Amino acid sequence: MCPAVTHPGMMDAPASLPAPASGVIAGDVHHYALRVFYEDTDAGGVVYHANYLRWFERARSDLLDVLGIDQRAALEAGTGLYTVAEANLRYLAPARLGDTIVIETSAVTVGRVACTLRQVALRDGVRLCEGLVKVGFISPEGRPRRQPEAWQQAFTSLVPIANPAPEGPE
Amino acid sequence: MCPAVTHPGMMDAPASLPAPASGVIAGDVHHYALRVFYEDTDAGGVVYHANYLRWFERARSDLLDVLGIDQRAALEAGTGLYTVAEANLRYLAPARLGDTIVIETSAVTVGRVACTLRQVALRDGVRLCEGLVKVGFISPEGRPRRQPEAWQQAFTSLVPIANPAPEGPE
Amino acid sequence: MCPAVTHPGMMDAPASLPAPASGVIAGDVHHYALRVFYEDTDAGGVVYHANYLRWFERARSDLLDVLGIDQRAALEAGTGLYTVAEANLRYLAPARLGDTIVIETSAVTVGRVACTLRQVALRDGVRLCEGLVKVGFISPEGRPRRQPEAWQQAFTSLVPIANPAPEGPE
Amino acid sequence: MCPAVTHPGMMDAPASLPAPASGVIAGDVHHYALRVFYEDTDAGGVVYHANYLRWFERARSDLLDVLGIDQRAALEAGTGLYTVAEANLRYLAPARLGDTIVIETSAVTVGRVACTLRQVALRDGVRLCEGLVKVGFISPEGRPRRQPEAWQQAFTSLVPIANPAPEGPE
Repeated sequence: MCPAVTHPGMMDAPASLPAPASGVIAGDVHHYALRVFYEDTDAGGVVYHANYLRWFERARSDLLDVLGIDQRAALEAGTGLYTVAEANLRYLAPARLGDTIVIETSAVTVGRVACTLRQVALRDGVRLCEGLVKVGFISPEGRPRRQPEAWQQAFTSLVPIANPAPEGPE
Repeated sequence: MCPAVTHPGMMDAPASLPAPASGVIAGDVHHYALRVFYEDTDAGGVVYHANYLRWFERARSDLLDVLGIDQRAALEAGTGLYTVAEANLRYLAPARLGDTIVIETSAVTVGRVACTLRQVALRDGVRLCEGLVKVGFISPEGRPRRQPEAWQQAFTSLVPIANPAPEGPE
Repeated sequence: MCPAVTHPGMMDAPASLPAPASGVIAGDVHHYALRVFYEDTDAGGVVYHANYLRWFERARSDLLDVLGIDQRAALEAGTGLYTVAEANLRYLAPARLGDTIVIETSAVTVGRVACTLRQVALRDGVRLCEGLVKVGFISPEGRPRRQPEAWQQAFTSLVPIANPAPEGPE
Repeated sequence: MCPAVTHPGMMDAPASLPAPASGVIAGDVHHYALRVFYEDTDAGGVVYHANYLRWFERARSDLLDVLGIDQRAALEAGTGLYTVAEANLRYLAPARLGDTIVIETSAVTVGRVACTLRQVALRDGVRLCEGLVKVGFISPEGRPRRQPEAWQQAFTSLVPIANPAPEGPE
């Protein structure tokens, strides 16, 4: 009744329990991978368009994490939080249930308050959705606030060298 | 302008690009890990209660994947799909932004059409939400259908040996 | 180029702008209606199962509103908030894009801290999903707290007279 | 124990059951109202940014409905469906739990395949988020397809007269 099936992910003891997906920074690009689940899709059979914004936010949160920035501590300490000021999205090809998606994030401009990031969702190198997302740091009351110096430097390291104007105007 | 910061996740070349989170089966329990993002939380400052059902479904989809079951191919080929018939949830403690959550899934009963799974969300071993979720296999038209034999066997391997009645009455 | 089409919902001046959906209490049952949008569906072509919990919560929030309870003011004043302690759901039939759904909510037990509500999602009188949802009042720090007296009375008015035990044990 | 409380929305018999929110077209602008629920908010205490795209889609679906266009029938008959090709969003002010939001939608360009719509989310006349959303009609296989003639005419009626170029280039 209980067949002697051995599964690829099977272990006798949980020697190493699984970890959440974590991205990596390679050069000046952050890469974050995810799988498409039912919750991401809609009755059209493809990923619901608004969910790319959720995925981009997951990638930015992971990026902060990789950069050593603890946004929850900053939120709870009243330091502030990043908020999305603009998002400009182009949808190029659909994603489907079970697809493996990689989100690539790089910085376009990094200023004292706001950063503009380029984010792309790809499946096997095919671009599905690309966005320019401007995030701004705000106080808990919602007013623009200078982001911590170390955070600004961390973001600056993600601006491609070929892009010589990391300081946004604002 | 571009400080010589070295980040933990930084690499010069994307030697190994990141993979989506993937669960493991240890003994008769499947473990799947995830991180809490802003999208998961609500204005109460904690994870919105409905999202545990999304997380449980992610874990079940990953479980199918680990068991070698391709639910998208089954969906597209008209073989059928699993649908949730019952979900009984108890919320024990809240989760917050940035938490690492592990979803543990084991089988309680496995029948020809339906399986009942026990799913628990934990943070550092603390139980946050536990559920009994009954899923049934249905045809594309929505009628109950016998699940593929190999799938039933795969699920049966997740029924604890101490639980000697894997055949549910359904 | 601009044809003289007259649409059903067309007006020359916005004499009365539209209002959000609002439920009504008839006897001891609260009724709340909603439409199924793409965001509610998944690649199976039907409403994603977790979304019934979102709908039930919309109905409960509207119910509080109809009962004159301002949950945002209570949240901001530190009075407390309702949290879901248990949800037991049975899925009976699927809903599809464009369906009009009515959520019926009545009280089963009303105690000093917790209430158990019966909630049903119907389409044209057909039961799609029914749930027993236990909500508890908690302090902003997450500890059980006695709900305001007037709120408890308001909920009590939703307990059917045939159900003579409105005081839950808790 | 069951006090003789009379609630504003209370009725003895469900003479008229509630209806889902429905928008109206006033002049060349479609108005759709909604309430902010817990599901819409995040741990920052405000509406999660991606949800404006969900709200804009609700408004567009309601608009199709008011214009007499049955998108579900078109989906099921294989006629095709609208897909989002571009979305350009500016976030101006946050929304909070319980807020009443109105989504205003008007057409900027209407072509054979694609339409560009201007959509704004307002609370008491204050602009919270404004977007330019380009939707394209596609076949069930995902290829651009000419939208039904009557639908194009219906959208054209939403192009402000002051905007004399309703034919998009595409």
